[in-house]
Amino acid sequence: MKDGSTDFPDTRTEKDPLGEVAVPREAYYGVHTWRARENFAVSGLAVHPELIRALALVKKAAAMANVEAGLLDDRRGAAISRAAEELAEGRWRDQIIVDALQGGAGTSTNMNVNEVIANRAIELLGGEKGDYGIVHPLDHVNLGQSTNDVYPTALRIAAIGLGRGLAQAMAVLQGALQAKEKEFGAILKIGRTQLQEAVPVTLGQEFGAWAEAVARDWWRLYKAEERLRQVNLGGTAVGTGLNADRRYAYRVVEILRELTGFGLARAENTFEATQNADIFAEVSGFLKAAAVNLAKISADLRLLASGPRAGLGEIKLPPVQAGSSIMPGKYNPVVPEMVTQTAFQVMANDLAVSLAAASGQLELNAFLPLIAHNLLQSFTILTGAAGTLAEKCIRGITADPERCRRLLDTSQGVITAFVPYLGYEQAAAVVERAIRTQRPLTEILVEEGLFTLEEVEAIMRPEELTTPGVAGARYFQRQKRTGD
Amino acid sequence: MKDGSTDFPDTRTEKDPLGEVAVPREAYYGVHTWRARENFAVSGLAVHPELIRALALVKKAAAMANVEAGLLDDRRGAAISRAAEELAEGRWRDQIIVDALQGGAGTSTNMNVNEVIANRAIELLGGEKGDYGIVHPLDHVNLGQSTNDVYPTALRIAAIGLGRGLAQAMAVLQGALQAKEKEFGAILKIGRTQLQEAVPVTLGQEFGAWAEAVARDWWRLYKAEERLRQVNLGGTAVGTGLNADRRYAYRVVEILRELTGFGLARAENTFEATQNADIFAEVSGFLKAAAVNLAKISADLRLLASGPRAGLGEIKLPPVQAGSSIMPGKYNPVVPEMVTQTAFQVMANDLAVSLAAASGQLELNAFLPLIAHNLLQSFTILTGAAGTLAEKCIRGITADPERCRRLLDTSQGVITAFVPYLGYEQAAAVVERAIRTQRPLTEILVEEGLFTLEEVEAIMRPEELTTPGVAGARYFQRQKRTGD
Amino acid sequence: MKDGSTDFPDTRTEKDPLGEVAVPREAYYGVHTWRARENFAVSGLAVHPELIRALALVKKAAAMANVEAGLLDDRRGAAISRAAEELAEGRWRDQIIVDALQGGAGTSTNMNVNEVIANRAIELLGGEKGDYGIVHPLDHVNLGQSTNDVYPTALRIAAIGLGRGLAQAMAVLQGALQAKEKEFGAILKIGRTQLQEAVPVTLGQEFGAWAEAVARDWWRLYKAEERLRQVNLGGTAVGTGLNADRRYAYRVVEILRELTGFGLARAENTFEATQNADIFAEVSGFLKAAAVNLAKISADLRLLASGPRAGLGEIKLPPVQAGSSIMPGKYNPVVPEMVTQTAFQVMANDLAVSLAAASGQLELNAFLPLIAHNLLQSFTILTGAAGTLAEKCIRGITADPERCRRLLDTSQGVITAFVPYLGYEQAAAVVERAIRTQRPLTEILVEEGLFTLEEVEAIMRPEELTTPGVAGARYFQRQKRTGD
Amino acid sequence: MKDGSTDFPDTRTEKDPLGEVAVPREAYYGVHTWRARENFAVSGLAVHPELIRALALVKKAAAMANVEAGLLDDRRGAAISRAAEELAEGRWRDQIIVDALQGGAGTSTNMNVNEVIANRAIELLGGEKGDYGIVHPLDHVNLGQSTNDVYPTALRIAAIGLGRGLAQAMAVLQGALQAKEKEFGAILKIGRTQLQEAVPVTLGQEFGAWAEAVARDWWRLYKAEERLRQVNLGGTAVGTGLNADRRYAYRVVEILRELTGFGLARAENTFEATQNADIFAEVSGFLKAAAVNLAKISADLRLLASGPRAGLGEIKLPPVQAGSSIMPGKYNPVVPEMVTQTAFQVMANDLAVSLAAASGQLELNAFLPLIAHNLLQSFTILTGAAGTLAEKCIRGITADPERCRRLLDTSQGVITAFVPYLGYEQAAAVVERAIRTQRPLTEILVEEGLFTLEEVEAIMRPEELTTPGVAGARYFQRQKRTGD
Repeated sequence: MKDGSTDFPDTRTEKDPLGEVAVPREAYYGVHTWRARENFAVSGLAVHPELIRALALVKKAAAMANVEAGLLDDRRGAAISRAAEELAEGRWRDQIIVDALQGGAGTSTNMNVNEVIANRAIELLGGEKGDYGIVHPLDHVNLGQSTNDVYPTALRIAAIGLGRGLAQAMAVLQGALQAKEKEFGAILKIGRTQLQEAVPVTLGQEFGAWAEAVARDWWRLYKAEERLRQVNLGGTAVGTGLNADRRYAYRVVEILRELTGFGLARAENTFEATQNADIFAEVSGFLKAAAVNLAKISADLRLLASGPRAGLGEIKLPPVQAGSSIMPGKYNPVVPEMVTQTAFQVMANDLAVSLAAASGQLELNAFLPLIAHNLLQSFTILTGAAGTLAEKCIRGITADPERCRRLLDTSQGVITAFVPYLGYEQAAAVVERAIRTQRPLTEILVEEGLFTLEEVEAIMRPEELTTPGVAGARYFQRQKRTGD
Repeated sequence: MKDGSTDFPDTRTEKDPLGEVAVPREAYYGVHTWRARENFAVSGLAVHPELIRALALVKKAAAMANVEAGLLDDRRGAAISRAAEELAEGRWRDQIIVDALQGGAGTSTNMNVNEVIANRAIELLGGEKGDYGIVHPLDHVNLGQSTNDVYPTALRIAAIGLGRGLAQAMAVLQGALQAKEKEFGAILKIGRTQLQEAVPVTLGQEFGAWAEAVARDWWRLYKAEERLRQVNLGGTAVGTGLNADRRYAYRVVEILRELTGFGLARAENTFEATQNADIFAEVSGFLKAAAVNLAKISADLRLLASGPRAGLGEIKLPPVQAGSSIMPGKYNPVVPEMVTQTAFQVMANDLAVSLAAASGQLELNAFLPLIAHNLLQSFTILTGAAGTLAEKCIRGITADPERCRRLLDTSQGVITAFVPYLGYEQAAAVVERAIRTQRPLTEILVEEGLFTLEEVEAIMRPEELTTPGVAGARYFQRQKRTGD
Repeated sequence: MKDGSTDFPDTRTEKDPLGEVAVPREAYYGVHTWRARENFAVSGLAVHPELIRALALVKKAAAMANVEAGLLDDRRGAAISRAAEELAEGRWRDQIIVDALQGGAGTSTNMNVNEVIANRAIELLGGEKGDYGIVHPLDHVNLGQSTNDVYPTALRIAAIGLGRGLAQAMAVLQGALQAKEKEFGAILKIGRTQLQEAVPVTLGQEFGAWAEAVARDWWRLYKAEERLRQVNLGGTAVGTGLNADRRYAYRVVEILRELTGFGLARAENTFEATQNADIFAEVSGFLKAAAVNLAKISADLRLLASGPRAGLGEIKLPPVQAGSSIMPGKYNPVVPEMVTQTAFQVMANDLAVSLAAASGQLELNAFLPLIAHNLLQSFTILTGAAGTLAEKCIRGITADPERCRRLLDTSQGVITAFVPYLGYEQAAAVVERAIRTQRPLTEILVEEGLFTLEEVEAIMRPEELTTPGVAGARYFQRQKRTGD
Repeated sequence: MKDGSTDFPDTRTEKDPLGEVAVPREAYYGVHTWRARENFAVSGLAVHPELIRALALVKKAAAMANVEAGLLDDRRGAAISRAAEELAEGRWRDQIIVDALQGGAGTSTNMNVNEVIANRAIELLGGEKGDYGIVHPLDHVNLGQSTNDVYPTALRIAAIGLGRGLAQAMAVLQGALQAKEKEFGAILKIGRTQLQEAVPVTLGQEFGAWAEAVARDWWRLYKAEERLRQVNLGGTAVGTGLNADRRYAYRVVEILRELTGFGLARAENTFEATQNADIFAEVSGFLKAAAVNLAKISADLRLLASGPRAGLGEIKLPPVQAGSSIMPGKYNPVVPEMVTQTAFQVMANDLAVSLAAASGQLELNAFLPLIAHNLLQSFTILTGAAGTLAEKCIRGITADPERCRRLLDTSQGVITAFVPYLGYEQAAAVVERAIRTQRPLTEILVEEGLFTLEEVEAIMRPEELTTPGVAGARYFQRQKRTGD
């Protein structure tokens, strides 16, 4: 008895070495896809659309190279190219039905793509779906290829494309942070180390520090692309290139470079590029570094905006949705919270990528689908998180300069600026009195006759307190010269 | 200007503290959902259906308890109950449109559910969607509740339900392994430690060892359910129960227990149960232990089935799909590979759960949506993987007893059984000769006159070699007595 | 040429199947240890002392069981027992020189222990070190054993012992937290969700919530011990018990139970217990849950103590060391910071344990040394962290009730208690005015004639605000009755 | 009563803001160290020696820069420099007694180093330990510095130094692998994908693929050094440089560059460099990529060497120690096993680094000690593992060319080379017959008259089978031309 026969009223029969299978008559996929669908009914997670797009481009490039090399006739080549283009453009996505967590190094995704393209090409050539004499998924669409060179190549292309999108989102985020760095450049506030008052900083400096970290992430993405550009296409089953026609193998990467617009190159050693997945672990490590930064930034935002009145409250995040069904007037920092979660998810995804990458065996890494799923998801969610953080949060942040100043004045953090004048011991005594009396340090410094009000003001100027050197040094030098 | 107005031709206007929003006229969701949708356009991942189902049950239970307590009129209560039931049964799922990676401790999912139920209830009562005077998402559907008690409660219920499904899949897997334990009980083979020949075992013992590990997982799921049964429903915003009517709070858990059929109980300290998420980390740890076992089993299966001829080849996995487009006759262990990947994903998910659980702050853990997404996904994919492993792989495994025997005979692993008779030194010399001459050890033992063939056979009997004690001891004792 | 000959002036020669090795004449270790030392010059990390202790107890138990079974003469048995005792008590630790990150499933640690005990026993019997005719590391000390049953058994014993120590530390921590729960039970403060003001709680409730989480950890340790009690001693190489004398195998676990005082039992299936390491992953998962709780608690402590003046400042941690070399009067929350780091390390260790546990192959897990190193370290550092947190931090915490009250009053969080009387809309308007005018909500409520001062006070009583129900409900009922 | 007074018979008294402490009279450390020792009795893990060395170099550079800037007199400067040199050279290491898992962003390690250098300098100047009027740990040794600029700078220096050592070990490993690539270049064998026979490869190619991956790791270390070169020294407490004398700040990095020989540069934005730790996460990610490669290589080695007779057995690892106490002649792949464990540990350490890096708050990351501990340990153990793998394993590997050939011949993997001549269908039929009859494929090909023996040999030549193109194509072209 045929497999798969009962679920659909109208079916066609396909065959593979294991026997016959009934697939829905209108389906563009075929027997291999159907079996994979049955074998991996696990997660319900879809294959990433950018991976499908990249696979379609590889198929198109292969068809074109095969035609050029005289291995495929023009008519079939054109039909395959056209069908692959359509798939790349987003059509027929509902025909890619294999689970993201499939076994088999990506064979099932490759076969799903092969079958969809073949049947669509058949249709374009006026045939009936399933009439593989017209266009065959393996003999024509997959000609000269193996999952083991096609799939990693497509994964790299998808990663490059998504990486560029992420780089753009990071640039937007960096820009938004820098705008605030400038806007808040004159707002003096207490800096905190280990959540305890330290020395004065400006609110702008804080946004600038975040911007700098994000700039580094942007730059890492640029480096990531360099790593991803070497593809093993043409290596076939294990990268030795057995049975690959040299003319085809030479041209296919060139054509793919043109189709994608990415600076792809054939790996020098396609044998090793087929089996080693450390580059994906490295790139995922870059994304984790970005996650580290986003986690830090979003935690800081939540801290600085805590309150609104019984917290630090130095900044106010733009409200984007009501925070509570039972607490009137509550707005929560939901965008930074989303960013934190995204960062955690990327860290978790990095683990999945690393585990899979470390588990390759001999000539192949069978766990590339897991790498693809997690790596591409990380790109996607980081892009969404960074963009949303910029647009829905950073841009709308307002500062509370009065509160910043009040907290600075009541803090003990300004004392450090006076230590060069007072010495550590006397400074410590002033701090103690300020804490005991709950009064601003600067008041006590003046009251005790240690400094004049003008001197205190000279020391307490933002640019003096937040740039290298002893605050007020120039003022005192000037005074001294005047006094001389 | 209103938000959201441009995308849909036919809209209605809703309002929240931030202003007006146009939502599609036919949508069951409302303004809160819409804002969340805009704020968290991140992953495209859907909220887990079992979480929606559990939330709907909580809503139904709350409506019933509120009616009993006289806080909600019968008509509204009935409409809400009915709408919640429909949602629980799987209707209106396309109306739950918020992203799984949302900020805000689950508020957006809760509000999406509140709005869908409210609008459906309005419809059931003959009103127009959006006419919240009839049924209000907050005042009626969410009455007496807070996201902070509703969401963790629903998460626990979803986890219990999925856990039972996983337990069932594990039981099926255990059964399949035990059937093979029995079937292969008499097949003697070489045991391997550190991939080097050790001492004889039976193939059945190997399946039995896997079954035992799976049995432990099954038992852990039972323990997990115990941990998940304590719910904080009735605790409202921070678990203190402020504003929760005592009559409602008393009844709602009872009703929910009936609706779910699970042994739910109100946590003794709802305040702590609202803020601490260690139980989810613990349960995720159980799933990771299951992942550890599945990873080990699937790696072993791939090893034992390696070949088919140039590997260990002691067992043959049932072919489930063609393995290669260019290599005829190749079948790959795709089901165990899928299981390995699932195990890795569960380990990664456990990290996300742990990070989120460790990051709660003061009275709440804002990252419960991340916990929910990863924990519930782990349950789901483990269930799929375990079931598929049983059905598509274990049940169809065949053994190659001749090969098992041949490898045993050519191995040096049987020598250990002869050490008690020969001593370590002489045994080592025999091994050396066997390796040098590439001949079976047992041949050499007989040839050198160390044992008779009968004696060798007495020692080499499966039950002698694979159970505690010195192999052949009874035979020699019998011989000795006979000899006396 | 002999290996190892050049480093020491005074050496003795030992032999193994690979040839001769010169070891220091005074060393208690021998050739196997020496080779392992050379092979694993990797981390410089020592084998955990509790693992050595446990191995020594296993050796003693084995010697006693072997004597009872007539397999070992009394004189050797007594010398081995005595030497093992000494090692268990902490002597000769400098003779255990193999690296913690050794390959080989623990063989090298086992052999190091065997050699040290043998040479010490030889010495006790009046012989010269290296004269293994007197006591042999393998034939006598290791008699009836294999690394593969000895090492996992010792690992379980070490884990149980350390687990009890950790349970005690957790009990101390719980006690310290509960004492503060009581001490701070009447201090009303604003509760915060998502770092934004929510509803009132007591400071005592916060300490109570932490205590409850720690109590759960304590209970998990109890469960962990249950899992660890099943040992595979007697199973020899792969757990089948080949060559293990039944009399010995029967007695050795009994004796070990007496020596350790732990409720050890022989695993029902020693074959599976030899190869599966999921129990260690499970126990490590419990420790990770404890880490999750400690991370949460220590982050909360740092938040609540932030300031001292420009932060939340609701509590003050006892200063334990000067915080800064350049900032006078700065004290940092160094103990909670240490706890956070410990928690992170435990989470990382859990990953190492899980990776190793998942990587067992067929009849053995070769990576038990990695499991041992990380699991036992997690026990140790959690014990140190929990104890230190209790003694150096929690016990010395003081509250600032005035600040707690002031922040509560200026917060918008109390409004929720008035919502049942005002409705959500009017309440929201009051909040808005309070924020605009920067004045306490309660003032506005009275000023606007919404409540009398007495009514506000009735609602604002701690026990009303922080327990289930509508705050002030009884007061108003009483008033109503009086008014009737 | 003084703290710390009871443990030592002979003590001196020191003082800090918290009071008096008795420290051992002969100790070079002082009160700050002593308190830290008490506060962090957690792990017993020592601070990494390279971190101490780097800190000592920073202290020397600071002393020299301070002398140049006229902030420190020559005599004190010289004594501090000399003492710092001694510490850098490895003396006084037993005086660095603070725990690696300390809270406080590294303050305690910095103070321990300050105190040891101060007391040693005092001694060099003829004073008594503790007489800080001569040389003061803070006023002189720490002059112009803060833990927050000193510690991250030293961490970077330590990482660069260790990174160079690791790069060297990787180069050695790469060299060893390449030597084998050459040695085994002509050994034809079956390639395996998903552990199933695929197509022929050479054993040399396998070693070459590993070498290539290691080469990439080497290159990553070079990149890592680039990232680590930017130091924040001179930034003091939060990187703004408050109180740092500009002459000192300008010179200190220059001097440090000379002392270390590393291309250090002052970070452009020391404020951000003080608070962001993403660079450490990035570098740790590089180490994880190396771990991924080492895990893959060592697993492959264990697979290929499995047996010796009942496994793949294509290569033989050099025996380095006896493998079993009860199984004669057993040698285990203990070096690759150690490497696997090291790789897992590095992956776990990467998690600790990432968690700590993501947890910085505002102006500082308090968890740098955890980063230091894990990152530096990863460098160390990878260096040990890579070097040992090269020396104790790779160099001594021998091949079994006959077995490689025999397995190739009995495999079905050669059939792919004949597909271009036979077509997929007929090839599949030949495979089927070979499997059924358990005979080599090539025999059947000849026997069935499909190819002559000469033709089979022409196709089966190693260079034909393992390089791009159709195997034997040139032979047949030549034949055809001859035939024409």
